[in-house]
Amino acid sequence: MSIADIGEFGLISRVVARLENGPKVLLGPGDDGAVVAAPDGRVVASTDVLVEGRHFRRDWCSAADIGHRAAAANLADIAAMGAEPTALLVAFCAPPDLDADWAEELAAGLSAEAALVGASVVGGDMSSSPTLTIAVTALGDLGGRPPVRRGGAQPGEILAIAGRTGHAAAGYTILSRGFRTPKALVEAYRRPQVPYGAGPVAAAHGATAMIDVSDGLLQDLGHIADASLVAIDVHSAAFEVPSQMRDAASALGLDPLQWLLAGGEDHALAATFPAGEPLPAGWAEIGRVYDGTGITVDRKPWSGPVGWDHFR
Amino acid sequence: MSIADIGEFGLISRVVARLENGPKVLLGPGDDGAVVAAPDGRVVASTDVLVEGRHFRRDWCSAADIGHRAAAANLADIAAMGAEPTALLVAFCAPPDLDADWAEELAAGLSAEAALVGASVVGGDMSSSPTLTIAVTALGDLGGRPPVRRGGAQPGEILAIAGRTGHAAAGYTILSRGFRTPKALVEAYRRPQVPYGAGPVAAAHGATAMIDVSDGLLQDLGHIADASLVAIDVHSAAFEVPSQMRDAASALGLDPLQWLLAGGEDHALAATFPAGEPLPAGWAEIGRVYDGTGITVDRKPWSGPVGWDHFR
Repeated sequence: MSIADIGEFGLISRVVARLENGPKVLLGPGDDGAVVAAPDGRVVASTDVLVEGRHFRRDWCSAADIGHRAAAANLADIAAMGAEPTALLVAFCAPPDLDADWAEELAAGLSAEAALVGASVVGGDMSSSPTLTIAVTALGDLGGRPPVRRGGAQPGEILAIAGRTGHAAAGYTILSRGFRTPKALVEAYRRPQVPYGAGPVAAAHGATAMIDVSDGLLQDLGHIADASLVAIDVHSAAFEVPSQMRDAASALGLDPLQWLLAGGEDHALAATFPAGEPLPAGWAEIGRVYDGTGITVDRKPWSGPVGWDHFR
Repeated sequence: MSIADIGEFGLISRVVARLENGPKVLLGPGDDGAVVAAPDGRVVASTDVLVEGRHFRRDWCSAADIGHRAAAANLADIAAMGAEPTALLVAFCAPPDLDADWAEELAAGLSAEAALVGASVVGGDMSSSPTLTIAVTALGDLGGRPPVRRGGAQPGEILAIAGRTGHAAAGYTILSRGFRTPKALVEAYRRPQVPYGAGPVAAAHGATAMIDVSDGLLQDLGHIADASLVAIDVHSAAFEVPSQMRDAASALGLDPLQWLLAGGEDHALAATFPAGEPLPAGWAEIGRVYDGTGITVDRKPWSGPVGWDHFR
C-alpha cells in the first residue's frame, strides 16, 4: 500500500505507533509541538538533511538502515557539542507511490538509533515530493557543562579521535563499484557505529574543541583549525588499517589512507585536549595542534581530496 | 552566481551573514549545534516542511516571501502550544543551479519573520537536491505554563479564533487562476499575518485546547474534536467576508465561505475556552463545543472540502 493510499494522517498514525517515548519526552508526537526536558535551562539543537541519490540509495540500504544513518548524523552533532541527545524531529518528503511499509521501517530505524542514547523521535512533518528527503533535527542536554565549540584548540594540544574513520567510505566505494562485500565495510556504511558517549566524556575531561567527522576527517579538522586559528597535523601512523580494508583497497586499486583521512559518515568524534594529561577512555591520539593555519598529514600538505561538498 | 559556484561553505557563510541572533541564542550558527535558552527547563519543538510545487511556487512568491511563509508555519505551531518561539533551524535542499542570491533572500525572510517574535535562525543544513525543499524546526519557551494541547476541549465551551482565515486560500486561488489582484489577498498568501502573541495569551487565560490553522479551519478543528472526544460546531455568521474577498469570489464563481472555513495557511489560532468568561484580547467567538463527534457548520454537516492532505 502506498503512502498516497493511506494518506498523510493515516501514515502519521502508523509511524507514530512505531515510536517509543524516552525519559526526556514530556509530550510526544500528536500535537502542534512536542515538549522535551531541558534540565539545565538550555537546549542544544542541530539539523542534518539526507537526500536520495545524494546521501543514500534505496538499493544500497534498507529503510531501517537509512533511518539509523539519518539519526546518527544528527545525534553525532549533539554529542560533538559535549551534550547528550534527548529528541529528534523528522521532516519526511516522499513520492506518493512510496510503499507505506518503507516509511514505517524508516521511522523504526530512526527511533531505534535514537534509543541507543535514550533519545526519542518526538515530532515531525510529512509531505509528498518528487525527491525522497529526510531532514532531522536533534536536541540535546549539556548537563550543566559549557558547549565544546570548534574554536578552542591551542597550539601544543593533542588531537584525538573517538570512533573509527574510513569504514563507511570504504563501504560506499565498494557499493558504488557494484560489490556487496566485505560485509563488515558495507554494514559500516549502512549503519554507522557512533561513539556518542565519547562526546560528553570529552567535555567533562576538558576537551578544548570538538567536531563530528561527517564530511571527511581532514575537511572537518579544517573547520577546527579555521575556527581556532591554528594548524593541525595528523599522524598517519596512528591509523591502523584493518585487514579487510587493506584487502578491499588493494582489490580496487586504492590507497586505504584516502578512506581513513578523507572519508566521512562513520561519525567519529575529533577533539583537542591539553597535552600532558591522559586522554579519556575511548579517545586515541592522532595528531597535534601547531601555530599556523591549515591541515597537514605527517607535517606535509595532503594532495588528495579532503572530504565532500554538498553542492559540488 | 549559482550555489554550486560558491559551494556549500561559501553559501553557508553568506547566509549566516544575513541572520541576527536574538536574546535567547546562547550559541548561534557555525558549530555542530546551536545552544538556545530554555528558561523553564523544557523546550517546545515542532517541524514543518515546504516543498516546491506543493507548498510554494517561485513564480508566485519571492524568496523572501517563501522565507516568511516557512518561518510562519513553524512559529505558529509553537504559538499554538501556548509558547513563545525562540529559535529556528533550517534544512535547505536546492538544485545546484539555484541563484545564490535567492538562497540569501530566503534566509533573510526566515530571519525577519522570526525576529517578529524575538526568535532567531540558529542553525541548519544545506544539500543539493532536484527538488527545492525547506524544512524548518522551531523551538519555543512555555514560560512556566503547561502546554495547551488538542485534547482538552469540553462540551459547553466556547470555540474562538485569533487571526484570520480564508485570505491566504483566496490569494492562492487567485494566483492559481492566473490573476495577481486583489493585491491584499495575494499578499496574504505570500506573507501570512500570524497572531503569534495570541497563543501565550490564550494559554494564560485558560484555553483548554488550541491548534494552528494550517491545513483548513474545519480540518484542523477536526483534530481538536478527535483528540478531545467532542463535537464542534462553527457559526458561519461569525465570519465577516471582506468586500475584496466577496468580490473576488463572485468574479471566480466561488463561495467565499469555502475559503474562510476550509482554507489554511493564514495560520490563525483556534482554541476552546470555558464558557461564561470573557475571551482574551485578540480572540473572537466562532462556535461551540458539544457532546458527540465531528465538525458541523451551523449545526449541519459541511458538504465541501475541509482542508488539505499532503499526500493526496
